[in-house]
Order: sequence, then C-alpha cells, then structure tokens
Amino acid sequence: MSERLQEFREWREQMNARILEAENLEIRRFFALDSRVYDERRLDTRTKELLGLVASLVLRCDDCISYHLIRCRESGWEPDELMEALSVGLVVGGSIVIPHLRRAVELMDELDDPDPSASDPPGGDR
Amino acid sequence: MSERLQEFREWREQMNARILEAENLEIRRFFALDSRVYDERRLDTRTKELLGLVASLVLRCDDCISYHLIRCRESGWEPDELMEALSVGLVVGGSIVIPHLRRAVELMDELDDPDPSASDPPGGDR
Amino acid sequence: MSERLQEFREWREQMNARILEAENLEIRRFFALDSRVYDERRLDTRTKELLGLVASLVLRCDDCISYHLIRCRESGWEPDELMEALSVGLVVGGSIVIPHLRRAVELMDELDDPDPSASDPPGGDR
Amino acid sequence: MSERLQEFREWREQMNARILEAENLEIRRFFALDSRVYDERRLDTRTKELLGLVASLVLRCDDCISYHLIRCRESGWEPDELMEALSVGLVVGGSIVIPHLRRAVELMDELDDPDPSASDPPGGDR
Amino acid sequence: MSERLQEFREWREQMNARILEAENLEIRRFFALDSRVYDERRLDTRTKELLGLVASLVLRCDDCISYHLIRCRESGWEPDELMEALSVGLVVGGSIVIPHLRRAVELMDELDDPDPSASDPPGGDR
Amino acid sequence: MSERLQEFREWREQMNARILEAENLEIRRFFALDSRVYDERRLDTRTKELLGLVASLVLRCDDCISYHLIRCRESGWEPDELMEALSVGLVVGGSIVIPHLRRAVELMDELDDPDPSASDPPGGDR
Repeated sequence: MSERLQEFREWREQMNARILEAENLEIRRFFALDSRVYDERRLDTRTKELLGLVASLVLRCDDCISYHLIRCRESGWEPDELMEALSVGLVVGGSIVIPHLRRAVELMDELDDPDPSASDPPGGDR
Repeated sequence: MSERLQEFREWREQMNARILEAENLEIRRFFALDSRVYDERRLDTRTKELLGLVASLVLRCDDCISYHLIRCRESGWEPDELMEALSVGLVVGGSIVIPHLRRAVELMDELDDPDPSASDPPGGDR
Repeated sequence: MSERLQEFREWREQMNARILEAENLEIRRFFALDSRVYDERRLDTRTKELLGLVASLVLRCDDCISYHLIRCRESGWEPDELMEALSVGLVVGGSIVIPHLRRAVELMDELDDPDPSASDPPGGDR
Repeated sequence: MSERLQEFREWREQMNARILEAENLEIRRFFALDSRVYDERRLDTRTKELLGLVASLVLRCDDCISYHLIRCRESGWEPDELMEALSVGLVVGGSIVIPHLRRAVELMDELDDPDPSASDPPGGDR
Repeated sequence: MSERLQEFREWREQMNARILEAENLEIRRFFALDSRVYDERRLDTRTKELLGLVASLVLRCDDCISYHLIRCRESGWEPDELMEALSVGLVVGGSIVIPHLRRAVELMDELDDPDPSASDPPGGDR
Repeated sequence: MSERLQEFREWREQMNARILEAENLEIRRFFALDSRVYDERRLDTRTKELLGLVASLVLRCDDCISYHLIRCRESGWEPDELMEALSVGLVVGGSIVIPHLRRAVELMDELDDPDPSASDPPGGDR
C-alpha cells in the first residue's frame, strides 16, 4: 500500500476514535449502524459494498469512494467488475462524476500495484 | 398493475418517444447508453439494476426509483432483498431519503398486490 | 387542520408502520435514531427541530420540510421566527429552494388558519 | 396556455406576494436579486435565461425549469435550441435528470400548442 | 490558531476582496446579503450560526463548515453542543457526511488546542 | 500557465487515457458523448461551454469548473462576462457555492496572469 493511502487510513481511524470518544450517543449509534448495514443477511456483504461504492460515486464523496473501493477489492470484486459498476454510476450521475471516477481508478491501480514512487495527483476534490 | 402505475408507464413511454423524435443526436445517444449500461457483461443485469435502484434512492428521484424497482422485481429480486438494498441507501443518504423510501415501499406492495382499490398517496414528490 | 394536511399525516403514519413491520433491523434502528436525535440533551428539542427544518430546506425535501414545520410550530416557534430561519436556508441554498419556500409558507398559513375551503396548489414537488 | 400552466403561474404569483408581505428584509432582498441577476449587462437576458434553465435542470427543480423554459421561449430561443441546451444538462447531470427532461419537453410542447384537452401527466415531481 | 487555519482565513479574506473588486453588482449584493442574514432580528446570531453550520454539513461543503464552526465557537456554543448539532446533520444527511464530520471535529479540536505541531490530514475534500 | 495548472492538466490527460484503455464500452461512449455535446450545432460551442461552466458551479465540482473556465476563455469569453455568468450560478446555487467561486476567480486570474510565484491556496475542496 502506498504511503498516501496508508496515511489516509490512519487519519481516518484516528478521527473515528476521536469522534466516538465524544460521548454523543446518537453519533455512536449511527457509526454502529453504518457498520452493521453492510453485514450479510439476505444480501451478502460483497453485494452491499458494491451498492455503497456506486452510491458514493453518484453522491460524489471521494473519501467514501476510497473506503468502499478498498472494501470491494477485499471482498473479491475484480477491477473490471468494479469498473463496470462505476460505469453505471457514471451514466446515472453524469459527467459531473468524472473527476471522482479519475481518482477512483487511480486508487484502484494503487491498490493493485502499490508503487510508492507513484506521483500524487495535484490537489483535486480529494 | 394498478391504474396509477399503468398511467405512469404509458406517460413515460410516450414522452421518451417524443424526446427521441426531436432529432437531437446527443440525447438519442445518451438514451441508448442509459439502456445499454444495464446489459450483462462482467456484471449481470440483476446486479446492475440493484445498483441503479440504490443510486436513484440516494439521489432522491422518485421516477427513477420506481423504474428500477419494477426492473429489479422483473429480474428476480425478492421484496426483502430489495428492502435490504434500500436500507444501505437509507444509511448512506440519511433521513432525507425517508419520504422516497415510503413511496418505494408503497410501490413494491402495489407491484405484488395490485389492488386497484388501493388509495392514492396525497401528492408526494412522485 | 385542512383535509390535505390530515391525509398527508395519515399516509405518513401508515407507511412508517408498513416499513417497520418489514423486519429489517437496520431500517428499524435508523427510524429509532431519527426520532431520538431530536430529543433534548445539551440542545433542546426546539432548537434541534429548527436545525432539522433548515437542513430539510437546503436539501429541498418537501415532506421533510412539512414535518419539521409542524414540529417547530408545536414546540413554540412563531411564524416570523420560522420565516427568519427559512431566510438563512434561502441564502445558503439559493434561488433553487424558492419553490420549496413557497410550499413551506403556504403550509405555515394552513397550520395557523386551517380553512378547509383553501384551494390546493396545482401539483408541486410535494 | 393550458389550464394547468395557468394555475401554476397564478399560484406562483400569489405565493410570491404572500412571501414578500412577510416583512422579512433578507428574503425581500434575495427575491430582488434573483430578478436582477438576469438583467442585461455584459451578457444579455436571453443568454442568462439559458444559463438559468440548464442550472435548474442539473439541480433537478421542476418549478425552476418551468419558469426558465417559459422565459427562454419569451426571449426568443427556439425549441430545438432549447433541446440542445437541455442535452448539455443531460450529459452533465446524468440519467437522473431524465424525468425532469420529460416534463420539460412536455411543457415546451404545451407552450407551443396549448391544447386544453391535453391529458395531465400522472403526478410527477412537478 | 494553527498555521493551516491562519492560511485558510487569509486566503479567504484575500479572495473575497478580489471578488468584490470585480465590479459585479449582483455578486456584491449577494455577499452583503450573505453577511446580513446572520444578523440578530427575531432570532439571535448564535442560533442562526448553528443553522448555517448544519446546513453546511448536510450540503457537504468543508470551507462553509469551517467558517460556521469558527463563528459558532466565537458566539459561545460549547464543543459538546456543536457535536450535538452535528449529530442532527449526520442523521439527516447520512453516512455520506461522515468525512466532513471528521474534518469538522478535527477543526474544533484545533480551535480549542491550537498545537502547531499537529499533523495535517492527508488531503480530504478540504 | 502556472505549474499547478500545468500539473492538473497533465494528470487529467493521463487519467483519461488510463480510463479509456480499460476496455469498458459504456465509459468510452460516455466520454465520447461528453466531448461531442459541446460541438456546434444549433448552439455554438462558446454558448455551450458557458452552460457547462454554470452547471459545474451550481453542482459544485471544482475540477469541472476549472475545465470549463479554461475552455470558456479559449472560446473568447472575457473575464467580466464569465464573472456575470458565475453571478447567475451564485444566485441559483446560494452561498454554498462561494468557496467554489473563490477558486474559480483565482484560476481566472491565474489564466490571465500566470505568475509562477503566486501562492497556492491552503487546501480547499479542490
């Protein structure tokens, strides 16, 4: 995993811990729910993560896309399957999602070939 | 199928035909693409329709939700599986999607038990 | 209360009950959370309902605006105070929220002077 | 002009008057600004109305689309020019704007051939 | 105040000045209105800033959240009160607002304990 | 052109090439359509680019705004004309678009006076 990605995950974990220690009951419950809703029941986690990915793409949230991309890869989806899921999000959400698609594809490449010498993107919504 | 649903489908078909006869090449291509993107390739149509449903829910478009709900039922998803897909959209999109969830569930019931005496909802974003 | 408003509330209650009977644990938990988050803790319910109203306005959800308007009136906010809260939402959200503002103001008038002979609006996102 | 369209315009005028009589200074100023921003300065009103139309389409507000469509026709844009402007909004905003495109095209037809016997659409976000 | 925060405020002031010197009357009026709408009238500034904060959270604009967080702290809201306001925005807006919540909480901590050695977040929508 | 801008364009080109080599037919077709929809037909490219700019502003996508700003300048729009188009987007989209307006104006200045010593903005949604 590249350094940038590693930093993102660490910062994410650290802030989640910080938020949960804030003693706000509703936020804690929301975080618990946000985790449980991807559990296998009638649909498997794999399918639900794909739903989370496309929902994140059309809502144009880079951090959410990154999170679900990582989880989708971990649950066994192949890059070309993910690309096809992203194509559905692209048609639903329009050209406005293209910058997020670029960053999603870059992350996918990084996940599969985590060359630490890879150049960072210059800014972007990320 | 209830009368309301039948009217929706007919109006939808009629307007699509009207739009396509307008001789606008880009709109025609977009409509073709919007149809093809749900074709089976690496992912099956069934999975892609579920992606379309959840994307429509988080973007809060009732007509789009209705369309994908019908297609999801036709491609074999069961009501409790669809409810679970909708639960992912609810957590991603928040309480703001609840009014659309209500109308989605009402439509699902209508699709399975198309009692023509069922009362119409009073207005709604639909 | 006008007939239209009464119908809206009844349909809303009926669909909420329908959704909760669906045995989907995450949806049930979300609905419980959506209710509890407005409970008095460090902020009072009155303030939180005002937050819910303005959030609903900028996200442009008529049903949500209606719900929070009713709750805001019940928790003691006066019409001109609500109008001022809506003015913040108007400046944040821009002219795109004006149609929702129109329907919000119409509902406020209806809540205070529920003349059943009042004419219905012709359609609208509601 | 069809009856439905006439009712929409009257209700709109009536609610605008109601909102402006509410003695909220910021809302009044916003409404004045919302009118003035389409005045001819370096860009002509005609161009600005087209910008308002496409902005309304991608933000998916039917009432706003209707308003700007009427103003665009009044300022001299032809139906096929408007269709081309809408095609830009369709590609930017994606398939999620299609229901609004359908209602926009229906309204355009109504504006040009206001046959009062035309059937109303069954509900819709309008 | 940390260096990062100081830079943000300076860049913000500088660009606002640059925009206002552009001699565009409507933009100037909008900026004036955007300032005045938070003035005390029937609601106090403190309440209106809280409305601005939650509206910014559900619309997912980091710069707007930062601005209103700073103003909320200056007008006397305590961190746990702000956390509770943010919890309303989280439930209304869904898990898609969580990345913005993380950055909001980080900024709140920075405002209260402006340790200049604190590490910057790795990118993010900010 | 400043270094930052040059890097943005190069990264953008590189990722577009990467996406198109992915052998996903629908994504390729969407990209082709996204290019063609700005071609001159009944409306000229110049007008369509202005539509793309304002659509990008109200949808709050910095990369899209940057792209269309560059294209608008290339197709002959003057800075004060662009500012006026942006003022329409500001009124339609509200104060939530102001951070994007700041970055748009900064880019416009950069395009006209590409001083490489200009300081970078501290983060932002970009």
